[in-house]
Amino acid sequence: MMKIAVDAMGGDNAPQAIIEGVEQARDMYSDIEFLLFGNPEKVKPFIKNEDRLTIVETTEEIEMGEEPVRAIRKKKDSSIVRAAKAVKDGEADAFLSAGNTGAVLAAGIFVVGRIKGIDRPGLTSILPITQPGSDRKSFVYLDSGANAESKERNLVDYAYLGKFYAENVLNVENPRVALLNNGAEEDKGDKLHKAVWQALNKEEGLNFVGNIESGDLLYGHADVVVSDGWTANAALKATEGTAKMLLTLIKNGIMNGGLRAKIGYLFLKPVFHKIGKVMKTSNYGGAGMLGLKAPVVKTHGSSDADAVKSTIGQIHAMLESGVIDKTVEFFSQESSVDKSEEN
Amino acid sequence: MMKIAVDAMGGDNAPQAIIEGVEQARDMYSDIEFLLFGNPEKVKPFIKNEDRLTIVETTEEIEMGEEPVRAIRKKKDSSIVRAAKAVKDGEADAFLSAGNTGAVLAAGIFVVGRIKGIDRPGLTSILPITQPGSDRKSFVYLDSGANAESKERNLVDYAYLGKFYAENVLNVENPRVALLNNGAEEDKGDKLHKAVWQALNKEEGLNFVGNIESGDLLYGHADVVVSDGWTANAALKATEGTAKMLLTLIKNGIMNGGLRAKIGYLFLKPVFHKIGKVMKTSNYGGAGMLGLKAPVVKTHGSSDADAVKSTIGQIHAMLESGVIDKTVEFFSQESSVDKSEEN
Repeated sequence: MMKIAVDAMGGDNAPQAIIEGVEQARDMYSDIEFLLFGNPEKVKPFIKNEDRLTIVETTEEIEMGEEPVRAIRKKKDSSIVRAAKAVKDGEADAFLSAGNTGAVLAAGIFVVGRIKGIDRPGLTSILPITQPGSDRKSFVYLDSGANAESKERNLVDYAYLGKFYAENVLNVENPRVALLNNGAEEDKGDKLHKAVWQALNKEEGLNFVGNIESGDLLYGHADVVVSDGWTANAALKATEGTAKMLLTLIKNGIMNGGLRAKIGYLFLKPVFHKIGKVMKTSNYGGAGMLGLKAPVVKTHGSSDADAVKSTIGQIHAMLESGVIDKTVEFFSQESSVDKSEEN
Repeated sequence: MMKIAVDAMGGDNAPQAIIEGVEQARDMYSDIEFLLFGNPEKVKPFIKNEDRLTIVETTEEIEMGEEPVRAIRKKKDSSIVRAAKAVKDGEADAFLSAGNTGAVLAAGIFVVGRIKGIDRPGLTSILPITQPGSDRKSFVYLDSGANAESKERNLVDYAYLGKFYAENVLNVENPRVALLNNGAEEDKGDKLHKAVWQALNKEEGLNFVGNIESGDLLYGHADVVVSDGWTANAALKATEGTAKMLLTLIKNGIMNGGLRAKIGYLFLKPVFHKIGKVMKTSNYGGAGMLGLKAPVVKTHGSSDADAVKSTIGQIHAMLESGVIDKTVEFFSQESSVDKSEEN
């Protein structure tokens, strides 16, 4: 039986959407138990069936705007800190939250803890490959915003973290790893990106396919795209914002296009529906913090029950695949090699 | 009479698309003369009417893949270097090319020359504001890729360069200036972006409205968005790539959606047509190098005659507005103030 520690209080639609998503996932996966951290008075009314659900009472909440590191130090009895602590203490196998992103990341790093040999965990999004005809449907993208300033070594770690995730959780054989850069050629980029290109190219354990530009992210040229957090964040937000804007433009055009446009919409509805589904990033799961000793996954603050359920499915796949153990094993060998080289 | 020096040999569709666009613009603007730099044997066959066109023979060409700075040093008789030289020597008022971007930029900096007081010119794109209902239709975006590593002072210069462009060429009163950053709040970003926020906020000559995230670029929150070249490039390419991908998905959905989808398309055609037009960035002109002593504008390598014509319209507006003189005047005062402060 897997145990997932859930922050029942975090997110715009908490606790209702969280509880609903948890119950849907519970009914779908017979091998998961849930610990729900939060205020029982607020949580209980939404529970339909207590099977494999345990409420753990917490008395504090970390708000969306709070300074993360300070918040997790101060609010020891918050749902975020307590859920992370349950993972650290072996009472749960993974931690899920839709709350304050920074606080979830900080709790992941300082409470759950990093895998030995990894300096900086990377926030990882699973993004859609929308290129028509592609046999791959998603790719691994990290570090999507956790670290504003990254070093060469961090990006090489991300390549391995992403590779293990793609192999074990997405079942991709020999995943193609690319570096997000400002041009396709080997010598593109600033000092950091040139150095990372050389480093990734030297790694025999990686199927490195070179640079990828931010305009080509959705085209399926790679299964893992690594980047410093700053650039990844700019490219991801621009991608999401543009997709949203274009769908708004189409909707607006239909609304203002009179009867003709509305009839057209009725005929094209299945096409739009399919595109909307492909582009809805929450269908691909939440943002996982890779490089920690257990799965810590942050689902979007605006997540509905469906998104919570998807994210639990993602955690289920992570736990079932043993991806963390394989990652730990690799980096423990790596760090002993590094040590012997240093001596 | 304005004189524009045109690189007739640069771009994927040169010289045909260049000549066609030039002739269309010539027929539209009675106050422009064109100097066409290139191989007369290749250029002449496409000219329909020689009115206000002069071919200037050049014997070399800079290819798309060549290392820019080396190319402009070596190929003194290339269409790019000669056209830039004509501007420097006062034989032309502006320079237009669809060729090797780096070479055009290098020719702009080293041949045409920087405005006194400006350390680094900024490559400037005019991008669409697509938010339905917005009364502004485009905004100024710089530095969109010229400089991989920027300093605080460069970004403050970009703010003024963009402001003067918006005021004089786009006729925007008191343009709103924003900083591209990884969050909306004052304290967001790395060290550089935090410092730039403070610097822009202090400038009394700017209507600074704070940070903007890359996902909000097309929403019309600002008339001028300044950024370091690295981040601007990542966000711009992601925006363009996502828009292209979504239009591909829709097209593909229609193609594979059977008769029903094709009928829907016929009804919705005017809506798609309008969106395609709004999103087509080449309708807004080429990428101008702001901070130089004369307009130097790079239009996309794949430009057709229409895009060349639009870009000439943009240069016409720049010359007519006197934006360069106003910029020169401002920075000459700035640099004398700086000097007196240093003493």
